[in-house]
Amino acid sequence: MSTAERAPILLTPGPLTTSPRTRRAMMVDWGSWDSDFNALTADVCSRLLAIIHGEGTHTCVPLQGSGTFSVEAAVGTLVPRDGKVLVLINGAYGKRLAKICQVIGREFSTFETEEDVPTTAADVDRLLNADPSVTHVALIHCETSTGILNPLEEIAKVIEAHGKRLIIDAMSSFGALDIDARQVPFDALIAASGKCLEGVPGMGFVFARSSALAASAGNCHSLSMDLQDQHAYMAKTGQWRFTPPTHVVAALHEALTQYEEEGGLAARHERYANNCQTLLDEMAKLGFRSFLPAAIQAPIIVTFHAPKDARYTFTEFYGRVREKGYILYPGKLTQVETFRVGCIGQVDAQGMREAVAAIAESLREVEVFEI
Amino acid sequence: MSTAERAPILLTPGPLTTSPRTRRAMMVDWGSWDSDFNALTADVCSRLLAIIHGEGTHTCVPLQGSGTFSVEAAVGTLVPRDGKVLVLINGAYGKRLAKICQVIGREFSTFETEEDVPTTAADVDRLLNADPSVTHVALIHCETSTGILNPLEEIAKVIEAHGKRLIIDAMSSFGALDIDARQVPFDALIAASGKCLEGVPGMGFVFARSSALAASAGNCHSLSMDLQDQHAYMAKTGQWRFTPPTHVVAALHEALTQYEEEGGLAARHERYANNCQTLLDEMAKLGFRSFLPAAIQAPIIVTFHAPKDARYTFTEFYGRVREKGYILYPGKLTQVETFRVGCIGQVDAQGMREAVAAIAESLREVEVFEI
Ligand SMILES: Cc1ncc(COP(=O)(O)O)c(C=O)c1O
Ligand SMILES: Cc1ncc(COP(=O)(O)O)c(C=O)c1O
Repeated sequence: MSTAERAPILLTPGPLTTSPRTRRAMMVDWGSWDSDFNALTADVCSRLLAIIHGEGTHTCVPLQGSGTFSVEAAVGTLVPRDGKVLVLINGAYGKRLAKICQVIGREFSTFETEEDVPTTAADVDRLLNADPSVTHVALIHCETSTGILNPLEEIAKVIEAHGKRLIIDAMSSFGALDIDARQVPFDALIAASGKCLEGVPGMGFVFARSSALAASAGNCHSLSMDLQDQHAYMAKTGQWRFTPPTHVVAALHEALTQYEEEGGLAARHERYANNCQTLLDEMAKLGFRSFLPAAIQAPIIVTFHAPKDARYTFTEFYGRVREKGYILYPGKLTQVETFRVGCIGQVDAQGMREAVAAIAESLREVEVFEI
Repeated sequence: MSTAERAPILLTPGPLTTSPRTRRAMMVDWGSWDSDFNALTADVCSRLLAIIHGEGTHTCVPLQGSGTFSVEAAVGTLVPRDGKVLVLINGAYGKRLAKICQVIGREFSTFETEEDVPTTAADVDRLLNADPSVTHVALIHCETSTGILNPLEEIAKVIEAHGKRLIIDAMSSFGALDIDARQVPFDALIAASGKCLEGVPGMGFVFARSSALAASAGNCHSLSMDLQDQHAYMAKTGQWRFTPPTHVVAALHEALTQYEEEGGLAARHERYANNCQTLLDEMAKLGFRSFLPAAIQAPIIVTFHAPKDARYTFTEFYGRVREKGYILYPGKLTQVETFRVGCIGQVDAQGMREAVAAIAESLREVEVFEI
């Protein structure tokens, strides 16, 4: 099949390219009240929980909607109404988390670093010393706006030492970067179906510390996003409180089976790391510079400086690469012109090489030579 | 294909049985930033709006999540923080709407009738006379807990005469029962993908009066459920604010095409009405009595009294009917033992006859004779 005939490969950080097998799992209609579907949900939750080794300490609560819904649900459910959240920001998703606190009426403060500067454990230590009224710290693990990785484990240990609670937005890292609940203390870790697990988008899930979840009744500002209520109902009936996205759940179930067949987290990480390195190497040959230094680059998505050439426009470039079968992602930085290329989804190093070849050809077509 | 081999037919009020063509539309991965997907979303919204003839007055705002998320979003976005909602209740979904008001902190009062008693326009007139502080009235069009139909048009006119705003939960009726925005004044009408349009579950949508939506900035208690923000972003960029359930949107798009091919609302209504009448007739032959009188029975879902026979249990009955290829729905009444059979989804009168034959056979197997 030529690249022009097949659906384009999504080099975007979710939705991403899924396997035909995952999509085929959506060819069946499930009754949301039926025990077969309840078993499917329970299986998804227990396999998700196993990925973080959270069986003894945490509860996996699935939630309808996009990943942001689950982030808002975690903050709304787990932060008491008189709590205070310290939000660590180095990109758009950190800003969104602060916005959530503001809209739902949780007191918060922010600590912002440049988009290429990770938050450090020392920063957090200093901030918590300075403001004892903070009850929860919120961190973006891989900040997808650039692809920067924040040092989760060190930060988590400092937060624990201060007796504070941690909420992790691991949307774009969960499943590919190792997070072990036995090593990394947290109250909530949030991710979604359509990211590194390679399911389709439509649901998120929150790993909530079971004791914190049990103590959270009545906190939430929303009925639909009340994770305590969602979990209590599911524990009692095996069912979702409100109609589940049945086909999305079935696709995630099938995606998890393939995840395990591939070799679980280690293998998924290795494939993505290989994709990322291949991408960086091949793009460097064309003269592209990545925005982040290698040490803080997560193997999820890479931000490249846009070509300097006056003939370059993202729209034209995007369209030509798309014609060749690859969907790129715009940059999300305000100061520098960039574009992004995802390394996740059903694609391997050979696919990345072909994508870069399509990028090279597109630049030649529009006579963009100065990179 | 024998009934035992194919996936069971869902005689449930959503998720329901979709067509293979609708499910096949999920075999493609879409980039959520791509113009092709933006066009798909825009097309879905304009075709949905056409169903209610709302082009001049209303805006269709799609939202991730189950239908309840859209109900909560409509109340949270369109009712100002100092508004007051009168909730008309004759079943579980009315109660849920009141619960939403309570959780999100909107003042509300309730008017509850028995589950087989529709709210009348006279009731609403009296209630609005008695409490001028009410700003919004919330009504469930077809209360799916029983299948009862409330007289929407008459109630809407009374509300307009009082200068108040109407919010309609039309989750289980939209697309099958005629609602014309040119005749029925309302500020919000809420439905979802996986009901009478025969899409898969995973998104809802709200038809909001455009002037009310424009005036609603800052009302919402939630970031994810802020319909004004969702709409403003979509109007500006063509994109959803947060990752859309791409496959669900594609399935709804394909389901809408089939809806129009079938003959639109009139044809969909006729098929469901025919399903409902066939179901009632065939079940009557077995001795089953429906809970609601015909005059207030919507052709969406029918509640039947459970057999009186001591050998009857719903679990056993459900399991045996399921084995024969049909998924029934439990009753939702607290006072009387009932079960429900949906008339919606990819099923016709012949399918309903076969379903009742499976019901008859199941009862014979467990020797339930006294109906
Ligand atoms: C780190 C991070 N947080 C939150 C989100 C929001 O998820 P969604 O777009 O599904 O709402 C994303 C999406 O890519 C993300 O990468
Ligand atoms: C009338 C009505 N309102 C609300 C809902 C809730 O929708 P969901 O289960 O998708 O949240 C339903 C679901 O069947 C319904 O029938």
